[in-house]
Amino acid sequence: METTWTDRYAQRTQHMGGSAIRELLKLTAQPDVISFAGGLPAPEVFPVEAFNEASQRVLREHGSTALQYSTTEGYPPLRELIAEMMSEDGFNVDPDQILITHGSQQALDLFGKIFINPGDHVAVERPTFLGALQAWKAYQAEYLTVPVDDEGMKVDQLEEVLRHGPKFLYTMPTFHNPAGVTLSPQRREILLELADQYGVPVVEDDPYSKLRYSGEPQSPLVALDGRRYATSDEGNVLYLGTFSKTLSPGLRLGWALAPKDVVRRMVQAKQGSDLHTSTFSQMVAYEVARDGFIDEHAERIRSVYRERRDAMLSAIAANFPEGVAWTHPEGGLFLWVTLPERIDAAELLETAVETEKIAFVPGHTLDPAEQIRNTMRLNFSYADVELIEDGMERLGRVLNRALAEKAPSAAQASD
Amino acid sequence: METTWTDRYAQRTQHMGGSAIRELLKLTAQPDVISFAGGLPAPEVFPVEAFNEASQRVLREHGSTALQYSTTEGYPPLRELIAEMMSEDGFNVDPDQILITHGSQQALDLFGKIFINPGDHVAVERPTFLGALQAWKAYQAEYLTVPVDDEGMKVDQLEEVLRHGPKFLYTMPTFHNPAGVTLSPQRREILLELADQYGVPVVEDDPYSKLRYSGEPQSPLVALDGRRYATSDEGNVLYLGTFSKTLSPGLRLGWALAPKDVVRRMVQAKQGSDLHTSTFSQMVAYEVARDGFIDEHAERIRSVYRERRDAMLSAIAANFPEGVAWTHPEGGLFLWVTLPERIDAAELLETAVETEKIAFVPGHTLDPAEQIRNTMRLNFSYADVELIEDGMERLGRVLNRALAEKAPSAAQASD
Repeated sequence: METTWTDRYAQRTQHMGGSAIRELLKLTAQPDVISFAGGLPAPEVFPVEAFNEASQRVLREHGSTALQYSTTEGYPPLRELIAEMMSEDGFNVDPDQILITHGSQQALDLFGKIFINPGDHVAVERPTFLGALQAWKAYQAEYLTVPVDDEGMKVDQLEEVLRHGPKFLYTMPTFHNPAGVTLSPQRREILLELADQYGVPVVEDDPYSKLRYSGEPQSPLVALDGRRYATSDEGNVLYLGTFSKTLSPGLRLGWALAPKDVVRRMVQAKQGSDLHTSTFSQMVAYEVARDGFIDEHAERIRSVYRERRDAMLSAIAANFPEGVAWTHPEGGLFLWVTLPERIDAAELLETAVETEKIAFVPGHTLDPAEQIRNTMRLNFSYADVELIEDGMERLGRVLNRALAEKAPSAAQASD
Repeated sequence: METTWTDRYAQRTQHMGGSAIRELLKLTAQPDVISFAGGLPAPEVFPVEAFNEASQRVLREHGSTALQYSTTEGYPPLRELIAEMMSEDGFNVDPDQILITHGSQQALDLFGKIFINPGDHVAVERPTFLGALQAWKAYQAEYLTVPVDDEGMKVDQLEEVLRHGPKFLYTMPTFHNPAGVTLSPQRREILLELADQYGVPVVEDDPYSKLRYSGEPQSPLVALDGRRYATSDEGNVLYLGTFSKTLSPGLRLGWALAPKDVVRRMVQAKQGSDLHTSTFSQMVAYEVARDGFIDEHAERIRSVYRERRDAMLSAIAANFPEGVAWTHPEGGLFLWVTLPERIDAAELLETAVETEKIAFVPGHTLDPAEQIRNTMRLNFSYADVELIEDGMERLGRVLNRALAEKAPSAAQASD
């Protein structure tokens, strides 16, 4: 045999695809760079003391159970608590419809595993959540895309996509990552009707709905859809929730809410994937979350993030040049900036890191077709107000220089 | 649209296969049944107090880090500790060769994800670990099998299998689950040479090696193989380890040790699967495991399990009828019983639960071809000595009756 081991493994393993964003983001890991590229919650809002008390209580009172194997479906009291949290008027969730997952990323993976054969189509928004694209790369999904504007998915372009028969439609209707927009009530109804008409299940990813800083709360698609049926088990929406933004992302605890038949298939897939989610983590999270703690704690998180969002919006308005547009998120962690079409945000990132020590996510990495090159995602949850103000000043300088250097020709300017 | 939602999902989702063992094992969940079917560690050996102290220390000293997102590769001090634990004379493991997984079940899934295309062949022992078959069902693996005897895999039948070009060879050489046997030193050398010659990577699953109750310790395949190379990064063995049997299965913490190129591919796959393993769990496990705790604690586990293994072997010898054979494990959690060929262990399980309230795993469920029907797996780690003695008496009665009912014909008896 002449081949080296590395050659051998390279021949035998699948090509998972190079990750352009990884390479780009290595730039941002330098310690003196102010990064708005990540999506980290602010560690100062983590309820560390509540976790400490809960861990002690769990180990003292149920130590042997907490350290033992448990069922794939999840810790029953936690499933019950989630079912209760998710039920609303006319929409009663049964705990058997809840599967606890190792972060909602795992639910995305499990959907890939049970739905997608190589070459199958999945409908997604453009831009969309990078984690979803990473999950489904392994299953060799092909994408159909629907653009997003200030009111969320442009549902007038949805029917054309559904006609192609995607396995499912993936959407983040509330405080979209990366676009920072929220699907309007009218569009929610249209989306549900079209998906129903074409028999395409909707995967609703909803990590941020507790993080609303302004505007009117909206019911998730799963509840709007569920109200049409006699039982919550008949719905056409598969919902993903998470404790990552309300309690702790490091714990890796999320859930899927789906008809029982889908939960059963996900359980089979999860059994082969990791057997079950950490018993200890589930029991600790339950002890922290019970008795209304999440709603109480979310209030504190919202007050911190609201201030940061407002600071970022003000600093952007004060520093960004004309010709640049941005979304005004009512919640979540991100806003989305659209530059003049002649600016490539990936090139801009290199300049920004080099000249002003500032980083963001260039938007083309969040587009399955890698086409929307004049866009960027900014995170406002992690950096404090002072850093946000400093960062937006720097980014403003980068943008001003880039626009001056690449001044439009007379012909382009008249567009 | 005339179809119901359930039909719709059934059409759209993959068929993950019915689980015969699940149905059978539902029988064993009745509270008055003595079950030797599971593979649970004894909860009385869990180091609950050590976990309690470690959790408090982690949250008090590193609370924000423990609850935050972390890298896909795993918590660096834990990777270093594992690399140190696994290094031996002539085999120095680099922490960058370690990937922390959500239980070693996840490593099996990741191997499926990076290696297996639908219809690819994987070589496994017969019988083999059920979790591996469950992991790779999702990737539509086909199996080539090598039988096992008292010295482990029958390597004289391995070359024939390797000639068919499997993507990898999966083996549990030490205290095999379910067979309870250990691959002899001679066979280890032959296995490694053949795998090398045919360029087939070996996946070594090693959950139990700290649980040796008698006999001489043996180096894992990964170390034997690694010594042939200038660096540990060139090996042909991908190794899976776990804290499930030494600290806690409920925590879901395992690891893969592999050449860095394979780790890199697994990291990409894991990123799409669940982003990373729980930061909190990793940090707590590190705090528990450091400073030699595992070796110290394993001594206590061994003393409990050794007594149970001995009790089971004695009770079997005292109660089982002639014509029944069983393995004599030097470690691990299981032994394997071979019945006369005319007895079907799946049928026997139904009778055993009904008449004597006793349960085991029928062996055909642990064979990809579902052919070895006259075998059963017994677990000796979970039940205490009294229950083991009671259980083996009951099982002896079931076997005696079954053999009497299905007495061989004169012709068969003369075989």
